[in-house]
Amino acid sequence: MKIAVLPGDGIGPEIIAQAQRVLEVLRSDGLPIEMEQAPLGGAAYDEFGHPYPSFTQNLCRDADAVLLGAVGGPQYDNLERALRPERGLLAIRKDLNLFANLRPAILYPELANASTLKPEVVSGLDIMIVRELTGDIYFGQPRGIAVNELGEREAYNTMRYSEGEIRRIAHVAFGIAMKRNKKLCSVDKANVLETTEFWKEIMIDVAREYPQVELSHMYVDNAAMQLVRNPKQFDVMVTGNIFGDILSDEASMLTGSIGMLPSASLDQNNKGLYEPSHGSAPDIAGKDLANPLATILSAAMMLRYTFNQEAAAQRVENAVKTVLAQGYRTADIFEAGCEKVSCSGMGDAVVAAL
Amino acid sequence: MKIAVLPGDGIGPEIIAQAQRVLEVLRSDGLPIEMEQAPLGGAAYDEFGHPYPSFTQNLCRDADAVLLGAVGGPQYDNLERALRPERGLLAIRKDLNLFANLRPAILYPELANASTLKPEVVSGLDIMIVRELTGDIYFGQPRGIAVNELGEREAYNTMRYSEGEIRRIAHVAFGIAMKRNKKLCSVDKANVLETTEFWKEIMIDVAREYPQVELSHMYVDNAAMQLVRNPKQFDVMVTGNIFGDILSDEASMLTGSIGMLPSASLDQNNKGLYEPSHGSAPDIAGKDLANPLATILSAAMMLRYTFNQEAAAQRVENAVKTVLAQGYRTADIFEAGCEKVSCSGMGDAVVAAL
Ligand SMILES: CC(C)[C@H](C(=O)O)[C@@H](O)C(=O)O
Ligand SMILES: CC(C)[C@H](C(=O)O)[C@@H](O)C(=O)O
Repeated sequence: MKIAVLPGDGIGPEIIAQAQRVLEVLRSDGLPIEMEQAPLGGAAYDEFGHPYPSFTQNLCRDADAVLLGAVGGPQYDNLERALRPERGLLAIRKDLNLFANLRPAILYPELANASTLKPEVVSGLDIMIVRELTGDIYFGQPRGIAVNELGEREAYNTMRYSEGEIRRIAHVAFGIAMKRNKKLCSVDKANVLETTEFWKEIMIDVAREYPQVELSHMYVDNAAMQLVRNPKQFDVMVTGNIFGDILSDEASMLTGSIGMLPSASLDQNNKGLYEPSHGSAPDIAGKDLANPLATILSAAMMLRYTFNQEAAAQRVENAVKTVLAQGYRTADIFEAGCEKVSCSGMGDAVVAAL
Repeated sequence: MKIAVLPGDGIGPEIIAQAQRVLEVLRSDGLPIEMEQAPLGGAAYDEFGHPYPSFTQNLCRDADAVLLGAVGGPQYDNLERALRPERGLLAIRKDLNLFANLRPAILYPELANASTLKPEVVSGLDIMIVRELTGDIYFGQPRGIAVNELGEREAYNTMRYSEGEIRRIAHVAFGIAMKRNKKLCSVDKANVLETTEFWKEIMIDVAREYPQVELSHMYVDNAAMQLVRNPKQFDVMVTGNIFGDILSDEASMLTGSIGMLPSASLDQNNKGLYEPSHGSAPDIAGKDLANPLATILSAAMMLRYTFNQEAAAQRVENAVKTVLAQGYRTADIFEAGCEKVSCSGMGDAVVAAL
């Protein structure tokens, strides 16, 4: 189990350190885990002059899975586009062909108050968003800023999906729906965009191979509304890269505790990159204040999806549930009556619960 | 004051009828209002075989303003793309050059319970979303579904903005911010899309002409989160067509009562199309159940933006506030202790309050 560990920027190193402690417990209990570190994003620019240098690339290509903290920070804002931290993230996704981004939005009962939505609207929330991650307008050509025939400057990007790209993400989404409540909602804007009309057509075609899954379709604007109106109507949602970027963030915020939400980005063979859904939080970096649970839960997803170690994954997830039940809270999820702990203090509690 | 009235489909005719009654009161009190009707969307397809026939086009081109109910219905779902009701809507926007879509998200104190968000998060909510409406990936060329060089089918659309298109919507947004709390948030995905990097650059440039407005920038994924986390941080938001489609619907649903929300779509000379933010609700069409208030408030926006009749606009808005305070509620916003009224019953109440 070769894991490339990329702490990244901001709070990345702190949260990664706690996830590594968890993995070390599993190793000492018998899992053949090997971890090696490399920089990504701003940290990689600082060390190697590039956000995804070949040192990191080689380590990640050789590894079975990648565990990432987070990338980005204000000190990199004025770098030219190609060198900015998020370019490292986009580059590693494309390089490793991580086309399937799984982003769960789960509300932990103990944290129900953290949501800005009424408890009855979100209690028990458990949505899995499957976002296509290596296509769409993120990578489509042509793109750029240029002077047009009328002598005016204009800018353009290309939304683009091939049949094969849609088919493979459809299979991932239907496969996940089969393991859950067998309800899949495909989100498109088929009334306006040919690309998503095509997306819908392929989804309907793939659905014939999964007769037990109930497939529905929703326009992206309506999906953005329905997530607010009645999020529990959803089981699994599947959508393209840009709509998935927007809707998965909206869905995660419904829980009020994005410090708790992991993510996985998988290739065709379940090699994956695992990272918390939240960002690098430069404002609290280095202060031992961050919430490491999303990163620890990302490691659990890794055990499940890449290493097929369901028991170990559940052991980690149960340890997280235990510490919540015990009342331990980092600052982002703290409420009166609980025990406020630091990032490393939360790591201590999880290790103890394991 | 020549107004083209387009009832459209579904509940369109019912809600338009109530808004017309309101306008007739103002006419009898002295405003030189003239109204003529034409079909749009499915109704136009039924009558003329096209969702935006030349009969409608001529009337709308001649008018000073257009009042629209809503378009769309399941009976038109299997028409070929070019004939579907929403094509009529896209066509009229483009034909009349209605590039500035104003979509307020306002929470009426009397309806605070309707929101799925906690009262303290949304009470007093008053956001104005300015969405560019005639550019972006909605209209960008090239677009289509084709077989690529590898013999595989693929589909594509083009996000595109010229400098002039961005500049003119920027001026509208800054102008509106000047009349409100002077805070403008421009939403982009400048870390990934050149088109929105360009958008951001032009926004910053136009900002120099409005030194009193505080301009901020937010990525679209973060904006989708912040609308859920803390919507009251926003005053005016400005964004492109597709992001605006998604975010304005999300924002309107924060109020829990989209039956109350009007919209305006303006050209360079404040000619405008006014319509409720909600859809054609085919399930309740013809039953006298719909909420006409969003359409009545759209007529108020028309008085304000196209006809510069601020007093008349406020008179209508105050009448709406009065009927809410009196406890009249259509089914969509009904709660115990209030008086449930039909669509026409609500129209009666507003006319009485006027
Ligand atoms: C940082 C950015 C490029 C990235 C994206 O848009 O994919 C992020 O928002 C995410 O969702 O992982
Ligand atoms: C019906 C559809 C084409 C339209 C749009 O996407 O603009 C609608 O969603 C809207 O927001 O007015």
